[in-house]
Amino acid sequence: MGESGELGEFGLIARYFTRPTPGAILGPGDDCALLQPSPGMTLATTCDMLVSGVHFLPDAEPRQLGWKSVAVNLSDLAAMGAVPRWLLLAGALPAADPAWLSAFADGVFACADTHGAELVGGDTTRMCRIGNAAGPLCLSLTALGEVPEGRALRRDGARDGDDLWVSGTPGLAALGLARECGQENGEPPVLPDALAGRAAAALHTPSPRVALGCRLRERSLAHAAIDISDGLLADLAHLLRLSGLDAEIGAHLLPALGAAEECSGISPGLLLDCQLGGGDDYELLFAAPPSARAEIAALAGELSLPLSRIGTVRAGGSPGGAIAVHEASGRTITPRRRGYEHFRT
Amino acid sequence: MGESGELGEFGLIARYFTRPTPGAILGPGDDCALLQPSPGMTLATTCDMLVSGVHFLPDAEPRQLGWKSVAVNLSDLAAMGAVPRWLLLAGALPAADPAWLSAFADGVFACADTHGAELVGGDTTRMCRIGNAAGPLCLSLTALGEVPEGRALRRDGARDGDDLWVSGTPGLAALGLARECGQENGEPPVLPDALAGRAAAALHTPSPRVALGCRLRERSLAHAAIDISDGLLADLAHLLRLSGLDAEIGAHLLPALGAAEECSGISPGLLLDCQLGGGDDYELLFAAPPSARAEIAALAGELSLPLSRIGTVRAGGSPGGAIAVHEASGRTITPRRRGYEHFRT
Repeated sequence: MGESGELGEFGLIARYFTRPTPGAILGPGDDCALLQPSPGMTLATTCDMLVSGVHFLPDAEPRQLGWKSVAVNLSDLAAMGAVPRWLLLAGALPAADPAWLSAFADGVFACADTHGAELVGGDTTRMCRIGNAAGPLCLSLTALGEVPEGRALRRDGARDGDDLWVSGTPGLAALGLARECGQENGEPPVLPDALAGRAAAALHTPSPRVALGCRLRERSLAHAAIDISDGLLADLAHLLRLSGLDAEIGAHLLPALGAAEECSGISPGLLLDCQLGGGDDYELLFAAPPSARAEIAALAGELSLPLSRIGTVRAGGSPGGAIAVHEASGRTITPRRRGYEHFRT
Repeated sequence: MGESGELGEFGLIARYFTRPTPGAILGPGDDCALLQPSPGMTLATTCDMLVSGVHFLPDAEPRQLGWKSVAVNLSDLAAMGAVPRWLLLAGALPAADPAWLSAFADGVFACADTHGAELVGGDTTRMCRIGNAAGPLCLSLTALGEVPEGRALRRDGARDGDDLWVSGTPGLAALGLARECGQENGEPPVLPDALAGRAAAALHTPSPRVALGCRLRERSLAHAAIDISDGLLADLAHLLRLSGLDAEIGAHLLPALGAAEECSGISPGLLLDCQLGGGDDYELLFAAPPSARAEIAALAGELSLPLSRIGTVRAGGSPGGAIAVHEASGRTITPRRRGYEHFRT
């Protein structure tokens, strides 16, 4: 704390979080950042709060945490088909450790740079102590992106008969979490190294699907999209409710979390729980007309990103939001876990 | 928790934090809010993190806390001369108490409505526990405003010979805090009721000087502005450093915290500390040419807001930021407290 104590808040901001912001009129250092949205563009904006002990482990590796803090926000922009532009970062820090801050900032900028976003402002403050214990690290990210007027991929645009598609491998992050922290009612699964590595990457350094969201929007391939950070079924239900529709999906159509031999030692129930209700996946779920199938398949190749057609949107009873999950045999499945929601007792 | 447990996160958001947003293309409920900045306008954006036990007392009255959370952000917009448009609110809540949330939301919307801002999005999450204790409430607000291109009141525009002006009564919030929490080295001051009321209002329900900032910008009256949330001297030093200039101010030119008879029982040292280094005041400090004096005086009358000319900007040695404080007699004062900064040991 010696060095950081000398530096103080303003020195910390200047040292670790201030980099050139050529895409802003004015970056950090004034009362506000000044940003010039492009003519004809609509601003897409989102914010997320991440709390130690809720969203990440207190001993999270700081570079990964910096990356993920940005990634979860950029994922929301991706789900609207927006191009990332600017970020604001607020943090309440239990301590101001230079090595930690430096690594965290590296992760923030690595993810931001990958997707063309600039950190233009924010606020750092100290976190209080709770009795004799350090208070939790608390981070809030706001992301601003741009999308041409009237072209955003909203949740409410799905249509009867649309295909449902999902990117990547939903459930990998939840499998990684189960491995690190155990399951609700059981021991942590034992995963082969390669699968464990992919699961850890999905959990700690997710890739927001910015390119996918932008291409879907540019090529008018999708009617609606959402990211599945709350879990596939939970987020699909959001999309369906806002679109006033229902859906049926095939559990066997979801991409497998690993090759058959990799998954042979893992309970099938756990695998399905992760796929359908895992949460913390930053993949996109989107509704697209059957006429777009070939173009979507081509896009998957272009982006080197698996895109799986997992079901169909159906007109049903109001208010919409019902999801039937079936197996390859046609038998209906009742999922044990639908998704994660804070405050639900 | 029964009712909130039933509601869950999405129900809480819908019930307490979702109101019509006619100024947004799309408000809460999708991955992002969609906002249409006005043609020719620059976006001003700022975010603040507020932590229980650091920025407010754990038993803070929720309506006041909601008001202040918005006010501190709008104050940053005001300091740029920006018109408030949109807000995003992220909160990590140790519990989800409906009565608390309802009162907090009322405060948020009361301040937002007063200044024409709309809550368009955000994130609520649960705060972790620390051992057996509840974790601290943690709030993050992001505010977005608009200002005509090239017209923002930046910190770096002050000029040699400018007058320094301050709005309202800087130090009242710090006096209120000293009364509620005691001083660093002493008992809480005893204040007469009227002064105690004004101090409590400054501390708990500050008025962001949005109208002042906008009028100063519209009428081209100020070269630079800053809000004095970190304390008058500390924020003046920021403005001076960015402008590469020094300043001299007269302590006797600062507006008195109360009438002579109200302040007679209060240590003059405490009063001066509050005025010069108090912090948590959401007044504007601005640099303006002497030619603007009559118009600024007229503006004070128009807004029913005291505007005090407290000193002068001077060219000095680089890098700027030096402040000489003198008394009416001309004698120089060395302030005990310059401002508040997190992490400074």
